[in-house]
Amino acid sequence: MADFHRLPPRRSIGWQDGKVLYIDQRLLPNEEHIVCTDDWRVMVEAIKTLAVRGAPLIGISAAYAVALSAFHTPQGIEQREYVAKAMDEIANARPTAINLLWAVRKMREVFEDAPDAPMLADRLLEEALAIHNDDAYRCEQIGLNGLEILPDPCNILTVCNTGFLATGGDGTAAAIFYQAQDAGKNIHVFAPETRPLLQGARLTVWEMTRAGIPVTLFVDSAAAGLVRDGKVNVCIIGADRIAANGDTANKIGSLQLALICKHYNVPYYVAAPDSTIDRNCPDGEHIPIELRNGSEVLVNGKMSQATYQGSIETKKLDIFNPAFDIVPSELISGVITDKGIFQFPYQFDKLEGC
Amino acid sequence: MADFHRLPPRRSIGWQDGKVLYIDQRLLPNEEHIVCTDDWRVMVEAIKTLAVRGAPLIGISAAYAVALSAFHTPQGIEQREYVAKAMDEIANARPTAINLLWAVRKMREVFEDAPDAPMLADRLLEEALAIHNDDAYRCEQIGLNGLEILPDPCNILTVCNTGFLATGGDGTAAAIFYQAQDAGKNIHVFAPETRPLLQGARLTVWEMTRAGIPVTLFVDSAAAGLVRDGKVNVCIIGADRIAANGDTANKIGSLQLALICKHYNVPYYVAAPDSTIDRNCPDGEHIPIELRNGSEVLVNGKMSQATYQGSIETKKLDIFNPAFDIVPSELISGVITDKGIFQFPYQFDKLEGC
Repeated sequence: MADFHRLPPRRSIGWQDGKVLYIDQRLLPNEEHIVCTDDWRVMVEAIKTLAVRGAPLIGISAAYAVALSAFHTPQGIEQREYVAKAMDEIANARPTAINLLWAVRKMREVFEDAPDAPMLADRLLEEALAIHNDDAYRCEQIGLNGLEILPDPCNILTVCNTGFLATGGDGTAAAIFYQAQDAGKNIHVFAPETRPLLQGARLTVWEMTRAGIPVTLFVDSAAAGLVRDGKVNVCIIGADRIAANGDTANKIGSLQLALICKHYNVPYYVAAPDSTIDRNCPDGEHIPIELRNGSEVLVNGKMSQATYQGSIETKKLDIFNPAFDIVPSELISGVITDKGIFQFPYQFDKLEGC
Repeated sequence: MADFHRLPPRRSIGWQDGKVLYIDQRLLPNEEHIVCTDDWRVMVEAIKTLAVRGAPLIGISAAYAVALSAFHTPQGIEQREYVAKAMDEIANARPTAINLLWAVRKMREVFEDAPDAPMLADRLLEEALAIHNDDAYRCEQIGLNGLEILPDPCNILTVCNTGFLATGGDGTAAAIFYQAQDAGKNIHVFAPETRPLLQGARLTVWEMTRAGIPVTLFVDSAAAGLVRDGKVNVCIIGADRIAANGDTANKIGSLQLALICKHYNVPYYVAAPDSTIDRNCPDGEHIPIELRNGSEVLVNGKMSQATYQGSIETKKLDIFNPAFDIVPSELISGVITDKGIFQFPYQFDKLEGC
């Protein structure tokens, strides 16, 4: 019985026989390891440690985690109480991605309306599967809607990873790359490595290479020269949360790309499912930004906090490690969603331009 | 006889008993290893592999390398011929830093005027020492001249390493930090890690911490958020070459910092010795940019080309790895040199504002 876990093509998470399968993305690109778990706490850890990451995938992982808590409530513990506590913990796994809260809220609604065991677990799974399938459908629609903004040939700048490793389907920004390839367009992806966790180098380069889409890797700070030299036709990024005015939280580095694109007049788009839009959040100032542990900055650069301490005789380095940037809406040419393309000034209740 | 090699405080290179001592900067911050060599080819390798780096230090290293070739010409080989060949090779060790060419040209002038052995080697050493001492003096003057642009307290953004590890003295941009500290000003340095080789994380943080100057480390792409949030009063970078119109070649990442500072109205200065100004180079388009091996981008991120190849079954990743950015002069608030501060539009024959 070797590793028998299998996921469908272009899928990084799935439900199988009462368990969740997911790719542990921390091991990519060197190892494609599929974890199989029936423990919702493993899913919480996976979210916290970025074994699963990307706003939509976090939401799906959270939904499956709630279902797991219902299917595998320990004997002797009241199921509703256990699931309710699990939901609270799952909702707090990471602070910025609205999809996490959105998915747990959807699960909570089902939870509150559903009968007790044995129906409760089935209903929760049904909802989690619906959230997953719905996301895959949204990805496809984002990809199709985004096609219209791509010239042919097209050099696309992006950041982080926005593909099937970030979602329940083909991705957000990357869904557009996949659809463009399917449509026979000639595209080339410029993928910054995305420090500190290197999602660009590890994940996007892996996805694009696997799909046969030409991709160029470079350090994050080299983007300005590429854009200045006219090598980029359009920048498309994902989003972790979009405020009602269009201000967008996304991977650290997104703001500098927006400023670079603005200076050199290159269109800068955000691609995300409608569920990423937080209509209750007026603007970027109301989006909490996750400050992550500084050790991430050291470890990936082959320096451990310990050796650094030893050599410079200091107790602690001051490391500023925000996970996200807020991009102000006026720097965003358009927001490509499954429902269509929105343009500045953003009014997400109405659809424009599609 | 343990490691007896010693350099003076705040010095990273020196001449001792017919040999060159230098800190192998690739090992910092984990190990402070001083190399002692009488082989000019070792110096060329040190320049090529960034064991010594920083434009002024490269020039000094090149000058000492020429002196070494004269002192240690192999028996049976004609000294002048040997030194001439060495000078050609030394001049080509790296393509962008003007100081390298400048230093070798100075050495070549002495070489051409000097008598043969045994005087030749002495004269070349005399010139190399003069170049070194001159640089240390220039560093001090840059530091003093730069003081006037710093408010008190002052949060300073920089990039790469510009301290005594980059020069023959206290540094270029960092000389200003050291002088400000000596003058009792309250400063705080924001040091981006500077991918791919992490000179900021490894060298600048090490230097600042050693000097007791508060320093904060972060990934290169997080600078935009810091500047937007008003945490930075001024940005000061070094330079590898400054064209006659003020366009400046400096570490990759310098252009994005300039664009960020422009957008948020934060002053952006270049600090460099006068020798970094290439008056024969009309503008940035005439500065050659060194494209370095893509493996630098992978290795420091803990991915080897080999493992990456294995997992994605591709022969070669396309990696774009320019060592430098060109910052257009209109984005530069001023150029702080040992001779004073120049301002836009740059006319380096005249002094302004000092």
